[in-house]
Amino acid sequence: MAPETTRIGWVGVGVMGASMCRHLLNAGYALTLTSRSRSKAEPLLAAGAAWVETPEQVALAADIVATMVGTPADVRSVYLGETGVLAGTRPGTVVVDFTTSEPALAREIHTRAHEQNVMALDAPVSGGDVGAREGTLSIMVGGERAAFEALENFWKLFGSRSVYQGSAGSGQHTKMVNQILIASSMVGVCEALLYGFRAGLDLDLVLQSVSTGAAASWSLSNLAPRILKYDFAPGFFVEHFIKDMGIALGEAERLGVVLPGLALAHQLYRAVQAQGHGRAGAQALQLALASLSGVDWPRQR
Amino acid sequence: MAPETTRIGWVGVGVMGASMCRHLLNAGYALTLTSRSRSKAEPLLAAGAAWVETPEQVALAADIVATMVGTPADVRSVYLGETGVLAGTRPGTVVVDFTTSEPALAREIHTRAHEQNVMALDAPVSGGDVGAREGTLSIMVGGERAAFEALENFWKLFGSRSVYQGSAGSGQHTKMVNQILIASSMVGVCEALLYGFRAGLDLDLVLQSVSTGAAASWSLSNLAPRILKYDFAPGFFVEHFIKDMGIALGEAERLGVVLPGLALAHQLYRAVQAQGHGRAGAQALQLALASLSGVDWPRQR
Repeated sequence: MAPETTRIGWVGVGVMGASMCRHLLNAGYALTLTSRSRSKAEPLLAAGAAWVETPEQVALAADIVATMVGTPADVRSVYLGETGVLAGTRPGTVVVDFTTSEPALAREIHTRAHEQNVMALDAPVSGGDVGAREGTLSIMVGGERAAFEALENFWKLFGSRSVYQGSAGSGQHTKMVNQILIASSMVGVCEALLYGFRAGLDLDLVLQSVSTGAAASWSLSNLAPRILKYDFAPGFFVEHFIKDMGIALGEAERLGVVLPGLALAHQLYRAVQAQGHGRAGAQALQLALASLSGVDWPRQR
Repeated sequence: MAPETTRIGWVGVGVMGASMCRHLLNAGYALTLTSRSRSKAEPLLAAGAAWVETPEQVALAADIVATMVGTPADVRSVYLGETGVLAGTRPGTVVVDFTTSEPALAREIHTRAHEQNVMALDAPVSGGDVGAREGTLSIMVGGERAAFEALENFWKLFGSRSVYQGSAGSGQHTKMVNQILIASSMVGVCEALLYGFRAGLDLDLVLQSVSTGAAASWSLSNLAPRILKYDFAPGFFVEHFIKDMGIALGEAERLGVVLPGLALAHQLYRAVQAQGHGRAGAQALQLALASLSGVDWPRQR
């Protein structure tokens, strides 16, 4: 694939999608897009992207169609709806869903696409808004290996790492593994800080002792310092994380796997949302955990 | 302090203590020691250490007395027993407890020591057997700052990092923060691997996708590969971890802090022990978590 010969279509230009489209335009690709609200697309249109009204029209104008939307329900409607992507694809098109969504839905879309000689890949990412902007996402891909390999240059535009994980749905399953890891890790970080705070420790000194060694984690190094500054701005939205954990719990039930730590994290994050912090960053778990103990997390220490 | 002018006493030469004593002998310090079983001390005696029968006798022969024993009950008896350390110390002696133990007990020992003009430091370590052997422990110190600073060269013999955390008990509290972090992190690692296994993923490929980025942790990088090889040999014993989590939960109750993730991890690790793996490494949580779902964790994949 090359900018001269491959036309790209895109559905969904939220925070992640917009950054990823920017990489496509910078690399010189012809880009046709649509999104729920046109206003978010304006900067991309000004930079040369073409606007159409439906996912079907995106697919009609593209050799590769990528999507980055919100929920599994959005994915279903964008792919399988009356004016959805699969209404516009032709044999040979490749469709790529970057949304974190349900493995079973990824398999359903794959089957429907396959019937039309279209190759569908599920390719959720981790690395958040910063990773999307800086092109350092980790991309976890399920579907036909040949399609994954044909898109080698495409992945490189967005990610420092893309790994083929197996048949359709495997990308989504791998993303669930990623989210299960983060869920309990965040519980540990916030409980540890709460304990340390109530024990009267100087938490900056504590982080010096525990941030390397066996307790080290990305969450601790990157989110604990924000929590200590009372900075709960999103990197990664609480409500998106709850959606992801809900998908993982549903899949776990289907697979017959008991995950008590994930279930606890999911409930605690629901408390974060119930307390009005659904649009805060994942580190806002600190506020709900503190409230469990009747503690107001301090704005100033 | 220097080898020519400072005599060291030591109580407890298990895996950790023995490695730490080795560093003292290598640095040329005169070392007097005792331990529950003399047999474990023999290699150190052969290398020049002197044996005595009681902690009191250790203290009588030393300017600095260090201890590295098992449980808070051991710490109490080693310091406060009839032939304990504080029966043998003179004014000006410094005593250092490296054991992971109760913050309240550390304060009690500190008070009793202070009455005798002895300075007591609580100085639990993280980094495990490897850290002790290689001199790369993280040491978290509570007690008088002056005593901490006077022992600067002493800490350097054992650790790549020593941080003064505050008054007596603060070292133990900081170690509890460390263990709270590890507890939930391990739950996340083992649940994530179980999910991935049952989802039919290739777990080596999965680790390629998730071991960097927002899900990264020391536990994931160091213990997940052992779990995949069915290697449950101890670095860090399950039964020691259960003891530490029990201390943290007791302190949390005293502090009025609710820690549901730690409580869950503690119960799950009790299941690991109940299933006969108390002397396995902390990564044996995988076996108990798999058994919850009726899954035999595979020896071969």
